[in-house]
Amino acid sequence: MDVIPPPLEQLIKELTKLPGIGKITATRLALYILRKPADNALSLAETLSSLHDSIQLCSTCFAFSEHDPCAICSDQRRNHRVICVVEGPGDLLAIEKTSSFHGVYHILHGVISPLEGIGPKELKIKELLERVRDTEVEEVLIATNLTVPGEATGSFLIDNLQQYPVKVTRLACGISMGMDIKYADQHTLARAIAGRQNFS
Amino acid sequence: MDVIPPPLEQLIKELTKLPGIGKITATRLALYILRKPADNALSLAETLSSLHDSIQLCSTCFAFSEHDPCAICSDQRRNHRVICVVEGPGDLLAIEKTSSFHGVYHILHGVISPLEGIGPKELKIKELLERVRDTEVEEVLIATNLTVPGEATGSFLIDNLQQYPVKVTRLACGISMGMDIKYADQHTLARAIAGRQNFS
Repeated sequence: MDVIPPPLEQLIKELTKLPGIGKITATRLALYILRKPADNALSLAETLSSLHDSIQLCSTCFAFSEHDPCAICSDQRRNHRVICVVEGPGDLLAIEKTSSFHGVYHILHGVISPLEGIGPKELKIKELLERVRDTEVEEVLIATNLTVPGEATGSFLIDNLQQYPVKVTRLACGISMGMDIKYADQHTLARAIAGRQNFS
Repeated sequence: MDVIPPPLEQLIKELTKLPGIGKITATRLALYILRKPADNALSLAETLSSLHDSIQLCSTCFAFSEHDPCAICSDQRRNHRVICVVEGPGDLLAIEKTSSFHGVYHILHGVISPLEGIGPKELKIKELLERVRDTEVEEVLIATNLTVPGEATGSFLIDNLQQYPVKVTRLACGISMGMDIKYADQHTLARAIAGRQNFS
């Protein structure tokens, strides 16, 4: 459609590169940005421009951080002997939100996915094993996603961690809070039964 | 959560200002942008920075355009005697996509909404009336949305256009294509009956 001015078309094209943003949403966002004062667009542009310069990976846990080591790795009130392994930074934020974990993290930055050409070497797995080998770690809590690649990555980690004197745990898999058992999928229900907890 | 580095937090804040983007989506988008090469973020930033400078309102129809008059207003193959009045630029794009309208447009940039303090003076209504008065217009097709404020704005326009010797039409209201009549809401069905077409 040549009725869309090229600069607007360009913005729509850039926005559709983002995950979950299709052409219709991108058009709506672009028109919204255009209708609002230029200051808003400039402020967003500035934040985007400086983003990659101001954020780096923590050299210990590989979280995104302004400083190295990151806020969590440099916090002495946290238990540095318990490492929670997650696929990505979004998972770290979700776990932090619960306020239930007081250890530190290790971010893999992906999962093993042979079809996409991602093997253990493309992830921060070697760095995790070195961390377990070289520092005083008591427990590694594996918190990869409950998906096929997440589970496969978890199994790979479990296999490779067995050479070290460290406790390896996984997040419990079971029925969600507030969930009706008759609506739970059979795989989850099977895992909830297999992992049933003992109160006796 | 102080675990989110401030520059990332800032980007999330900027993104949540966009319509339909909540904190969770904004976080997902921001992390995605951060994971991808800086070039992508810089390219989006550049497009955003130049957007408002390179796009203006067409002084005839008030569409967003790189040039004044816009592509549609300067297209002599279009029928300049038929003006389609829409609320916003997104509506114009939707109508253009149908390839069913060959006239020109007039963009109101909003609807009358007393609760939000938007009266006829805040919209491009005076400009529409002047355009009908001063140029050779045969038909004004009112294509405001089928919402309460859209209908009210349409009625206001119909009242004010009656002083000119111009045909005023509205988009047909009725059952959507592929829709099952028993699932149509009663207001739409009532309008479809009232506006029934004669094939005899």
